[in-house]
Amino acid sequence: MRKLRLGMVGGGQGAFIGGVHRIAARIDGQWELVAGALSSDPERARASGLDLGLAEDRIYGSYAEMAQAEAARSDGIDAVAIVTPNHMHAGPAIAFLEAGIHVICDKPLASTLEDANAIADAVEASGKQFILTHNYAGYPLIRQAREMVRTGELGDIRIVQVEYVQDWLAEETSNKQADWRTDPAKSGAGGAIGDIGTHAFHLAGYVSDLKAETLRAELDSFVPGRRVDDNAFITLRYAGGAKGALWASQVAVGHENALTFRVYGTKGGLVWRQENPNELRFTRFGEPAQTLTRAGAGSSETANRTTRTPPGHPEGYLEGFATIYSEAAHLIRHADQGVALPEGCETPGIQDGLAGMRFVSACIVSSNDDGGWTALG
Amino acid sequence: MRKLRLGMVGGGQGAFIGGVHRIAARIDGQWELVAGALSSDPERARASGLDLGLAEDRIYGSYAEMAQAEAARSDGIDAVAIVTPNHMHAGPAIAFLEAGIHVICDKPLASTLEDANAIADAVEASGKQFILTHNYAGYPLIRQAREMVRTGELGDIRIVQVEYVQDWLAEETSNKQADWRTDPAKSGAGGAIGDIGTHAFHLAGYVSDLKAETLRAELDSFVPGRRVDDNAFITLRYAGGAKGALWASQVAVGHENALTFRVYGTKGGLVWRQENPNELRFTRFGEPAQTLTRAGAGSSETANRTTRTPPGHPEGYLEGFATIYSEAAHLIRHADQGVALPEGCETPGIQDGLAGMRFVSACIVSSNDDGGWTALG
Amino acid sequence: MRKLRLGMVGGGQGAFIGGVHRIAARIDGQWELVAGALSSDPERARASGLDLGLAEDRIYGSYAEMAQAEAARSDGIDAVAIVTPNHMHAGPAIAFLEAGIHVICDKPLASTLEDANAIADAVEASGKQFILTHNYAGYPLIRQAREMVRTGELGDIRIVQVEYVQDWLAEETSNKQADWRTDPAKSGAGGAIGDIGTHAFHLAGYVSDLKAETLRAELDSFVPGRRVDDNAFITLRYAGGAKGALWASQVAVGHENALTFRVYGTKGGLVWRQENPNELRFTRFGEPAQTLTRAGAGSSETANRTTRTPPGHPEGYLEGFATIYSEAAHLIRHADQGVALPEGCETPGIQDGLAGMRFVSACIVSSNDDGGWTALG
Amino acid sequence: MRKLRLGMVGGGQGAFIGGVHRIAARIDGQWELVAGALSSDPERARASGLDLGLAEDRIYGSYAEMAQAEAARSDGIDAVAIVTPNHMHAGPAIAFLEAGIHVICDKPLASTLEDANAIADAVEASGKQFILTHNYAGYPLIRQAREMVRTGELGDIRIVQVEYVQDWLAEETSNKQADWRTDPAKSGAGGAIGDIGTHAFHLAGYVSDLKAETLRAELDSFVPGRRVDDNAFITLRYAGGAKGALWASQVAVGHENALTFRVYGTKGGLVWRQENPNELRFTRFGEPAQTLTRAGAGSSETANRTTRTPPGHPEGYLEGFATIYSEAAHLIRHADQGVALPEGCETPGIQDGLAGMRFVSACIVSSNDDGGWTALG
Repeated sequence: MRKLRLGMVGGGQGAFIGGVHRIAARIDGQWELVAGALSSDPERARASGLDLGLAEDRIYGSYAEMAQAEAARSDGIDAVAIVTPNHMHAGPAIAFLEAGIHVICDKPLASTLEDANAIADAVEASGKQFILTHNYAGYPLIRQAREMVRTGELGDIRIVQVEYVQDWLAEETSNKQADWRTDPAKSGAGGAIGDIGTHAFHLAGYVSDLKAETLRAELDSFVPGRRVDDNAFITLRYAGGAKGALWASQVAVGHENALTFRVYGTKGGLVWRQENPNELRFTRFGEPAQTLTRAGAGSSETANRTTRTPPGHPEGYLEGFATIYSEAAHLIRHADQGVALPEGCETPGIQDGLAGMRFVSACIVSSNDDGGWTALG
Repeated sequence: MRKLRLGMVGGGQGAFIGGVHRIAARIDGQWELVAGALSSDPERARASGLDLGLAEDRIYGSYAEMAQAEAARSDGIDAVAIVTPNHMHAGPAIAFLEAGIHVICDKPLASTLEDANAIADAVEASGKQFILTHNYAGYPLIRQAREMVRTGELGDIRIVQVEYVQDWLAEETSNKQADWRTDPAKSGAGGAIGDIGTHAFHLAGYVSDLKAETLRAELDSFVPGRRVDDNAFITLRYAGGAKGALWASQVAVGHENALTFRVYGTKGGLVWRQENPNELRFTRFGEPAQTLTRAGAGSSETANRTTRTPPGHPEGYLEGFATIYSEAAHLIRHADQGVALPEGCETPGIQDGLAGMRFVSACIVSSNDDGGWTALG
Repeated sequence: MRKLRLGMVGGGQGAFIGGVHRIAARIDGQWELVAGALSSDPERARASGLDLGLAEDRIYGSYAEMAQAEAARSDGIDAVAIVTPNHMHAGPAIAFLEAGIHVICDKPLASTLEDANAIADAVEASGKQFILTHNYAGYPLIRQAREMVRTGELGDIRIVQVEYVQDWLAEETSNKQADWRTDPAKSGAGGAIGDIGTHAFHLAGYVSDLKAETLRAELDSFVPGRRVDDNAFITLRYAGGAKGALWASQVAVGHENALTFRVYGTKGGLVWRQENPNELRFTRFGEPAQTLTRAGAGSSETANRTTRTPPGHPEGYLEGFATIYSEAAHLIRHADQGVALPEGCETPGIQDGLAGMRFVSACIVSSNDDGGWTALG
Repeated sequence: MRKLRLGMVGGGQGAFIGGVHRIAARIDGQWELVAGALSSDPERARASGLDLGLAEDRIYGSYAEMAQAEAARSDGIDAVAIVTPNHMHAGPAIAFLEAGIHVICDKPLASTLEDANAIADAVEASGKQFILTHNYAGYPLIRQAREMVRTGELGDIRIVQVEYVQDWLAEETSNKQADWRTDPAKSGAGGAIGDIGTHAFHLAGYVSDLKAETLRAELDSFVPGRRVDDNAFITLRYAGGAKGALWASQVAVGHENALTFRVYGTKGGLVWRQENPNELRFTRFGEPAQTLTRAGAGSSETANRTTRTPPGHPEGYLEGFATIYSEAAHLIRHADQGVALPEGCETPGIQDGLAGMRFVSACIVSSNDDGGWTALG
């Protein structure tokens, strides 16, 4: 079975997430990178393409050119990865979808709800696959947690507590990564809530299998001069009566990338911490807590299908991300070649992207309303 | 220097917190228990008193009798410990204060604001010491954390996140401890917010040295038939602009007594977990996290004054509680005998009790108002 | 039931372990300290006694005087606690035993095997109780671990790995605690192996319920000029074929009081760390690891009998020590008053003391023999 | 710069470590797998090759054929990865070296010292690169630890404690992975000491920068019928006076892949645990312990050069392994193309392999001598 051909928009020299996507695409050997419009700066686009070993004729100066040219080739790309800042998602996403090319897009979906809806329309019109890289959903123990909730091991879910706290923006700072994330014109109206809050929000829903209906948000910009939120305390009401709390912060000194979820039902509770992702704490009410390990005793088929190494040989962030890419490959081979899907194969997609945008939007509305309850739409 | 004489109201056979108070009073050797009205049931009162080695003539059938009799003795008690359910605090507290006897009272202060205010009036009128056993404030590393905040090691405080989560009330349950805590006539209107939320609220203010101004509360009673809250998500605004989140739960399956605080300022952050109280995680922005240990390298005078064993020889809940009793002894010797106070000696008192009651009250008001912002009064 | 009357030899101002014994004796309310020969310096003995509230006529200038006087009193002490440096155990122990007074003695038993044997002879001749404060055996989860081994939950024990590592002697240092411990005339021939290795050795046998037959030892004195060992790697062969490793160090920088045991059988394994003593990790082969907590789900009767607070309210070093004192009280009430023993009541005693001395001796012999196998005698 | 061309011997369907090598080779994009003799069973070799997308003419039935054919091609492989059981390392290693092809070989080097020496001779005769995949040396924090030792942050090293404990062979078991590892004809005379002890031994030397001179070993085969050791307690003496303990076990129930090192010098101490490899605990004597994180505050250039993601985005086993492959690529590009080596580029090689074999051999000799001191030769 041939490798799928991947193109990339963004991710040139100096970028962070583009490199992550490329490693993720390589890990399971399902993809080869063959084309790119890696920078809006033509010099950097070319230099970056050569660095990555792309053929000269597949290093493009713009995504529009690339979409057109790749669609026309018999060996054109199967999918494009869009790894630009948020405000530059919609343009390429729509262009490639319209060119009949599947899209793998970094999150959040866009910088505005309008852009997000336009992407969603293009997905529907094209019938192409659209994968949103909510990469934390790729961790095996997240799959296991979701499955445990679904099979009732926790009983009825009552409480979902999720946090994503960092400290890298605790002071005014200027660099390629920080600049666009703190510029509302590029990141969108959300700061921490968009950049990391959307991950936490997605994870909460993904694991709990619950739909958030309304929220209220307390957003702050603690760093003087900051134009977007850098700390958010959010309360959520889920359909069916469960309640949630979400905390996103980029000024919580002492935390690097502390994404954590805790979910509690009538029969049991789960705790998972991204910084040591190979363990899942599970307690049945009235029994000692258990430490479930990735691929270890008691791990599920679903979790095992998305892991590569035996227990005790830790997998990490890149492997979770790689699972998104491998699931994407399965979906695309299924769509294009009719290959059967592995059981349980799934990735976050356009609906998750829209939900994330509605989350950000509801947070802003609520915050402007002094924390009033706001529907997630 | 003679031991101080302690009486006790409540804490007879089958009680929990009375035994804790008695151990706490013994640990540092400053107190001897000499009198008690240990139960409202005379048989149990007598049996309990004999168990504890009290002289027959100092085993009382009622607190009123005890207050009167002890006040009249030349070797009467120096202080009384009140360890009854919340709705039975005010009666004895006022009786002993009026009899000129210092009071050590379990928390929360009372089951109603009216009772609380009546106690406060009696404290003021009597001029006697009133100590509220917010025992977690007795942990040495809590003292250290408070001092680090006060001396500016964290910079300006931005965020206070505090949690107190348990699971022992995750199902409908009936026993001596559970029954009164879930009966609004005995516990007061607050369930989890009163029983444990007040601890978390006190700790947040004690460590951060900040005053909460307003809050909004999402209270739930997840267990069918429960008449008080068993889960609470609360957002707080502190004077000066810091923001807080407080989570109290008695249905979070998998947690025994998980009281945690995390506080973040412009320069540093702290994390402390009660279930392993001998460690305090401290991070200066841009530096590796440090693990400060009780009595270990870098621990402060203030922390060391309230500890008994070398680092690595863990102290726990009872020692923290004992520190409250020892501070109480210092305050009383100071008041009655003119003995100088050790530097930094302090205990939670009537103002903390009133603040806790206002916290509970504001939570109820906010919850009834669908989570509207409510002043802490 | 009256409190038992305790005397103390050693433990005057500036001492460490004497204060620990006194708190331990107070915690459960079974003892009152009424007499002492607290220092070999008469001034300090007197000042220390007054500090502790002893009656003037029960502050003694020497243990010999105290033994004689207390034995003659109708309200004489029930037991004496000996908390002097190792080389001063035998004198008072024998004197009090001969005076018909029970003895609670700090460990190790003595500084020489000769002294140890003399104490053992005196114990036998007197018929009195002799309790050795291997306090770590008082931790509830140690009791639970021992019981789990005995009831076969681990299957046949194969491996016992125990460590006791500290760093406080990593450099040449001089203070009251360090001086006698590094002086062979006072501590005995063993340094780390005597001071802390005996604890680890005792714990290994106590939990595994196995008898060590031979050992080989690699002893080092890393700090220049040190006259006793400060690091020891020891291999052990137990009766029945189990193997053990024991590591004791006082120069392992970064560890305060890191006593740990790990024991593995055909069916399961246990891990316990003294610095967070409220958790015991238990794994059945092929199942997820469980975290057993003190007084929590799955804790045994034996463990619960020796604990005071609910799960999540941590107990520590002093409570474990207190359990030794309470067990001692039970033994003495049983011996003197015929009170029934609680089920499972036990304390380390003279045989444990002798075993510890033989351990130290065998380590020295083996080390002098370049690590040859040496019988434990 | 073109990707390097990799061939593989072993690693067909059902194998474990071959798949790990392939992922490791892909992660940093420096290698492409183009040829293989993946199984000694021709059917499986062919099926495995097709699975991996190899061209039909580069799927070989034997390593000998492959060495010859690839050496003859202008686009022949740059290096071969040997991932067969230990007893089948020497044959292919020598064949490829003689054919002028660089070798990347799994560890331990061979099943016999004779084989090991023959490989070493072939390495020397060929002048080719020989990389041994002691993959744990690829973890960034291992690089950092080594550098901290070398730059003197720990002072003079006194103690090296290293463990590698697992439980997967705690019972008699039969599967592809277990069978050859417990068959002395295939694994060599060492069981746990060869399979995992060599990793621990290598890591101890790599981090401490010390050379082990003599050891004594207590080897056991606890599982009835087992023909190789499954538990080993080893004491080591290093040049210069440092002492070490090494524990390797495959029957320690409750541990998956618990490789840990602890190293202590006159000025500081380090602790690292492979199962959570993104943290390194560092303590300077007399200061609070610090948690150094991969790529976090205080991490060194050397560590950062071998990492891919920001702090808090955990890397794991595969990334550490990938670093070995990337360093191998650098060495080979340097040797073949004259490309400059990055500073600090290094991989375990033939000398490490020989040292590991001498370690296994000395363990066996010592064990047969009842644990006598045995030189490492």
